[in-house]
Amino acid sequence: MKIIEGGICAVGEVLAGGACEDEFGVAVIVFKDSNASAVFTSNKLVAAPVIITREAINNGKLSAIVANSGNANCFTGTDGMEDAMSMAQEVADNLVLDVKDVAVASTGIIGRKLPMEIITPLIKKAINNLENSNKASTYAAEAIMTTDTFSKEISVETELKNGKKVRIGGITKGSGMIAPNMGTMLSFITTDIDATPNELKIALKKAVESTFNMIVVDGDESTNDTVVLMTSGSSGGSIDETFQEALEYVCSRLARMIATDGEGATKLIEVQLTGATTTKDARSAAKAVVSSSLVKTAVFGADPNWGRIVAAVGYSGADMDENSISICLGSDKKTVKIVDKGVVIVTEPSKDHEDAEEIMKENHIKIMIDIGLGDGLATAYGCDLSYEYVSINAEYST
Amino acid sequence: MKIIEGGICAVGEVLAGGACEDEFGVAVIVFKDSNASAVFTSNKLVAAPVIITREAINNGKLSAIVANSGNANCFTGTDGMEDAMSMAQEVADNLVLDVKDVAVASTGIIGRKLPMEIITPLIKKAINNLENSNKASTYAAEAIMTTDTFSKEISVETELKNGKKVRIGGITKGSGMIAPNMGTMLSFITTDIDATPNELKIALKKAVESTFNMIVVDGDESTNDTVVLMTSGSSGGSIDETFQEALEYVCSRLARMIATDGEGATKLIEVQLTGATTTKDARSAAKAVVSSSLVKTAVFGADPNWGRIVAAVGYSGADMDENSISICLGSDKKTVKIVDKGVVIVTEPSKDHEDAEEIMKENHIKIMIDIGLGDGLATAYGCDLSYEYVSINAEYST
Repeated sequence: MKIIEGGICAVGEVLAGGACEDEFGVAVIVFKDSNASAVFTSNKLVAAPVIITREAINNGKLSAIVANSGNANCFTGTDGMEDAMSMAQEVADNLVLDVKDVAVASTGIIGRKLPMEIITPLIKKAINNLENSNKASTYAAEAIMTTDTFSKEISVETELKNGKKVRIGGITKGSGMIAPNMGTMLSFITTDIDATPNELKIALKKAVESTFNMIVVDGDESTNDTVVLMTSGSSGGSIDETFQEALEYVCSRLARMIATDGEGATKLIEVQLTGATTTKDARSAAKAVVSSSLVKTAVFGADPNWGRIVAAVGYSGADMDENSISICLGSDKKTVKIVDKGVVIVTEPSKDHEDAEEIMKENHIKIMIDIGLGDGLATAYGCDLSYEYVSINAEYST
Repeated sequence: MKIIEGGICAVGEVLAGGACEDEFGVAVIVFKDSNASAVFTSNKLVAAPVIITREAINNGKLSAIVANSGNANCFTGTDGMEDAMSMAQEVADNLVLDVKDVAVASTGIIGRKLPMEIITPLIKKAINNLENSNKASTYAAEAIMTTDTFSKEISVETELKNGKKVRIGGITKGSGMIAPNMGTMLSFITTDIDATPNELKIALKKAVESTFNMIVVDGDESTNDTVVLMTSGSSGGSIDETFQEALEYVCSRLARMIATDGEGATKLIEVQLTGATTTKDARSAAKAVVSSSLVKTAVFGADPNWGRIVAAVGYSGADMDENSISICLGSDKKTVKIVDKGVVIVTEPSKDHEDAEEIMKENHIKIMIDIGLGDGLATAYGCDLSYEYVSINAEYST
């Protein structure tokens, strides 16, 4: 597998376009007659575009996606449904597509009517910009940003076991309301694997579970989360392990970008959890640690506070035994073992403690926890909790 | 029922004492041969003192409690168990009590050995200060403070249905790591109700569920939480509804004090949830709203961001229907209805919107949510998420 240029436009049949005005943006992605599958938020309150897209994707086919930032079109009643439908209609009319094959996605503030007088012209503008190019993928990625500080895209090419070459490209946005089972994150992934909608569904669900579902920014689960996977099938190769790995790599890189760019984040936190009784336990424990406000503030303060780490494992619900847990702290440069099978082996002051403090000052902190009970493992990504997070969210809607 | 002076010493047979040095404090409470019950953390990692106290209270009897702040004596192995036992022994030796009737509680940093060279002298000092007085209860309440900014105590007297007068007094500490099923909170409650340990257990469990278990500061559940209820039985009156109400009042006031004094809190958030399908749903939804980082930062920023409130109800797991939910925001002075059965009725700009903004600037914010589906109700307390919370927790252990 190699990383290539192009984002979602790395797949030849894809057209992308974007347009922005003030805090609003619109991305249009055209991928005619693609087989498609999607995963949505599990929040019981879902936005109008989620309802539309669930319906559109029901037959396993999509031809286009229209996505806006700046307003989530959620908790907006029948007006919201009409607005979401008119977004799809605008795209269908301009590009001569069946409106039932147009997916809609929105991200931004909840509970306010979508300003169609701004959104409709932006849709037209994005359609005018449509092309298959690196730049077009980037424009689309930029158009869906809210409090994101950088646009997020990746594309790869891999060779299947039967020798066929397949490409996968994705764009995403994240930043706030990022939680287990997805935050306000939109992610659109294109490929040319030859697969039925059902095969796509299985592959996407598996990939999402170990990637997007393992990132936490603030624990608030959004009403608008949508991950769409679309394919032309033109590679002629079908899904195998190599494809699955490449898809998980793409999802994982996009997920890591979201965590790195969490609202106010100054550091990426990676929790590598091993030795859990089950995979479920491993995921619960890893997510509890990466979600803990106390761990997050300790990381922000560059404090190797292992007590908060074990406490979070303790309340995660995962099986644990105080006498078998081990903990290391690491950066890209070094690793220090802090706890060995329940015994704190770093004393203060010591070289190891100084090293631990040095590690905590890096911008990528790895917390390696071995529960020491079984074979379950998981990795979770998150970010520190900073003054900036409070600032951004205390002032977002006003 | 009336509020009286005295804290835990409002009950005549109780002696209390406290002593502090730097970040460490010790409280000793003596209540000889009392019937007792307790509720502990549900974290799978529990501190040594919790293990000792569970054992001590097993026979339904206690004669004293010794509690320290500054160090949680958790994740400290066999040393930690010895230290906790020696705390109990010190009290038993000095006061000629059976060591098996001495409960131990600790709060503070996790994973560091208890500094017995500081704690033991403080125990002796607290014992020297023992007396039955308002001042003594306050000293004990002060001695268990960690990042608390004020000491927390209350006492009430009520007349049972049969005419007997009963007193209940309590002290508590909270501040950080406060979450559903209790944070690092210690609470010691005394009374003179005539009740068996089992009767106390039922009454305490019921009271804790709707009070201490409904406060959230940061969602991190501690390893040391302990609530102890002790009685002399000397009032001669037995538990009835009036007593239960008074006990719940005491627990509720102590819980509110903890939320008000949450780390870095500038505002108390009270979520009154009605119309849920079940009490369990009502509690889940109220706790989700009061725990939401996005709601907490919006309150800090005085932003009436109802979208974040409905989103939190949506991911709480409680049954909800977008078209039946109603939301009001209120302060001690006024209330504004924002959402009526799914329809946002406050427009911008308007007098109501200005009122909502005024309300959000108060220091006691009430969020009233009617899910509109059933009779389940619950109240949860929490606080805003401020720069100060980040500051306190980024710098706590170092």
